[in-house]
Amino acid sequence: MDSVIGVNLPEQSYQIAVVAGGLDDLGVWMSRLKLGKKVLVVSNPVIFKKYGERTLAALKLVGYEVSTCTLPAGERYKTLKSVQKIYDVALENRLERSSTVVALGGGVVGDMAGFAAATWLRGINVVQVPTSLLAMVDSSVGGKTGVNHPQGKNLIGAFYQPKFVLIDPSVLKTLPPREFRAGMAEVIKYGIIWDAELFDKLEAAKRLDQLRYVDEELLSLILARSCQAKADVVGKDEKEAGLRAILNYGHTIGHAVESLTGYKLVNHGEAVAIGMVAAGQIAVQLKMWKSEEAQRQDALIEKTGLPTQLPSGLDIDAIVDSLQTDKKVKDGKVRFILPTQIGAVTITDQVPADVIRQVLRQMQVS
Amino acid sequence: MDSVIGVNLPEQSYQIAVVAGGLDDLGVWMSRLKLGKKVLVVSNPVIFKKYGERTLAALKLVGYEVSTCTLPAGERYKTLKSVQKIYDVALENRLERSSTVVALGGGVVGDMAGFAAATWLRGINVVQVPTSLLAMVDSSVGGKTGVNHPQGKNLIGAFYQPKFVLIDPSVLKTLPPREFRAGMAEVIKYGIIWDAELFDKLEAAKRLDQLRYVDEELLSLILARSCQAKADVVGKDEKEAGLRAILNYGHTIGHAVESLTGYKLVNHGEAVAIGMVAAGQIAVQLKMWKSEEAQRQDALIEKTGLPTQLPSGLDIDAIVDSLQTDKKVKDGKVRFILPTQIGAVTITDQVPADVIRQVLRQMQVS
Repeated sequence: MDSVIGVNLPEQSYQIAVVAGGLDDLGVWMSRLKLGKKVLVVSNPVIFKKYGERTLAALKLVGYEVSTCTLPAGERYKTLKSVQKIYDVALENRLERSSTVVALGGGVVGDMAGFAAATWLRGINVVQVPTSLLAMVDSSVGGKTGVNHPQGKNLIGAFYQPKFVLIDPSVLKTLPPREFRAGMAEVIKYGIIWDAELFDKLEAAKRLDQLRYVDEELLSLILARSCQAKADVVGKDEKEAGLRAILNYGHTIGHAVESLTGYKLVNHGEAVAIGMVAAGQIAVQLKMWKSEEAQRQDALIEKTGLPTQLPSGLDIDAIVDSLQTDKKVKDGKVRFILPTQIGAVTITDQVPADVIRQVLRQMQVS
Repeated sequence: MDSVIGVNLPEQSYQIAVVAGGLDDLGVWMSRLKLGKKVLVVSNPVIFKKYGERTLAALKLVGYEVSTCTLPAGERYKTLKSVQKIYDVALENRLERSSTVVALGGGVVGDMAGFAAATWLRGINVVQVPTSLLAMVDSSVGGKTGVNHPQGKNLIGAFYQPKFVLIDPSVLKTLPPREFRAGMAEVIKYGIIWDAELFDKLEAAKRLDQLRYVDEELLSLILARSCQAKADVVGKDEKEAGLRAILNYGHTIGHAVESLTGYKLVNHGEAVAIGMVAAGQIAVQLKMWKSEEAQRQDALIEKTGLPTQLPSGLDIDAIVDSLQTDKKVKDGKVRFILPTQIGAVTITDQVPADVIRQVLRQMQVS
């Protein structure tokens, strides 16, 4: 089942296509958008080796002049220095305002390529072709682009919408299992914050981590519903003035965990899983959420093979302190997204520090 | 005469206040905007020595928590490296999304501070307090922010609108004469592209380079009309899809001249003056503009003390080649803004290279 999801924003609308095998039609999809003839494909060596040739062929087929820039894989290369490499290739190939950057890769590639496109010549086109589950359901949709500062993740960036997003579920077959699970954390998030029916489907699915091999139909559905959830939220609040913050469910403590473990020990999805368990428990403690529903969430997280406890050795005071440097802090108050039922959350900056500490202590490996 | 000019954009509108002595009221103006309590003042050491104390006092008076970041003065420091210094100070002072960067300085400070604000936490507030004539009538209005790439000016940047612009004409009294004249080039530009009455006023004024000492009233009027012209154009075309390109009158060849002289020999305003003379002559050659009006333009440029000939030793082929790397190139064609009468211009990419060469040869120092 192919799906096309519309993201409707005040200044610019665009489509997300979920099409198995769609990578070979990338050029055809793009040619409908009347972009300039120069395209710069940004990728990393691992992904480019797997899908670069097909991508270039799909683009050349419809007449694009294609150049490429591969950047080392991994969150620690998500820096201004890597973005400068993209700038250099853009200059060398004389990209123009009508030219397009195609981001072929996971979230790191997408964020950097998006940021480079947002800031080269004050903004050229970007098309996202996410190859990881995490990038498909999260970073490729919604226009958040950016890089890390040595002292904090995603501190440098811009809101900049892509012209088009192509999601080809088939490429997930080559994704390492741990990365697939990481992406499932964000899928579960959409179930909790927005789409109770999606949550039910995930709960009912038998072999969640094997989905991409055994049930491409269900996988496509999950991808489409996740993107639809994100598109709904972003369409209502592009610049994170209010509602969009709910997408950060699990991310408040998640970011702290990622940051304190140096973005190595725990990956983003795992950190979000831990953050969702924590936020769920905080909501239960504050009597905002039924404990049974929190248990259903935690069980789904466990079934996916994601962690529900803090990595050992992590200092609770350090986590609480780290929350203060988060982008989501306003006037010194930490904002939490807390579930009120499966499919609905609320935003609050009224979580007492001792409740946070208590919940985190319960989540320490005993 | 105080003026308040409205810049009306689809997503965000803001005001430009032209108020002699207004610097001391900066905090009062800003407090109407309901910004967060943290403010980071970005400046350069020269300007900060002159106006830093007054600025900080004006901000602290109304309760802002103020931090500062001074960056070396000069176009060659308009780099990502300087922007990174702003990021570091922003992090150190834990700026939040509701916080504000105040750009106190000329175009270099304004462009970098604006870009840092556009990209820190994916966008915090920026207030422009331009202290050079060029920044007042050009870079502080319209939301172009950015830095230079080692191989080209303003190649890295973003469209990002300020929340407010405060123009205090009194600060121009301390501006070096050459910089004042440079700013006048942009003022003359508005006369040619948009406001024939402004052109007449400039033509009628006796001591144009002495204006800031002898006629603050006329100076304020010129500032307000220039900002109004830019606000009109930007309000109709924020992202440079069409009309806004007319603001680049004189800049096509101007940028080439600046770039080929290493941004040192010829300053931006002087380069624009040279570019306007060239564009005027091209328009005359193409029989689009009356030669008498072109002469009036050139006479006004001369009266202001701005150059009307190419700097000696500049290679004409190099200029023509350099035009190709300009941001305004589309599908390899160089776009020119050409006057059709005083107060009106047209945009064309149909200028034969031999006409460009011929005009440039006429402008060589004999």
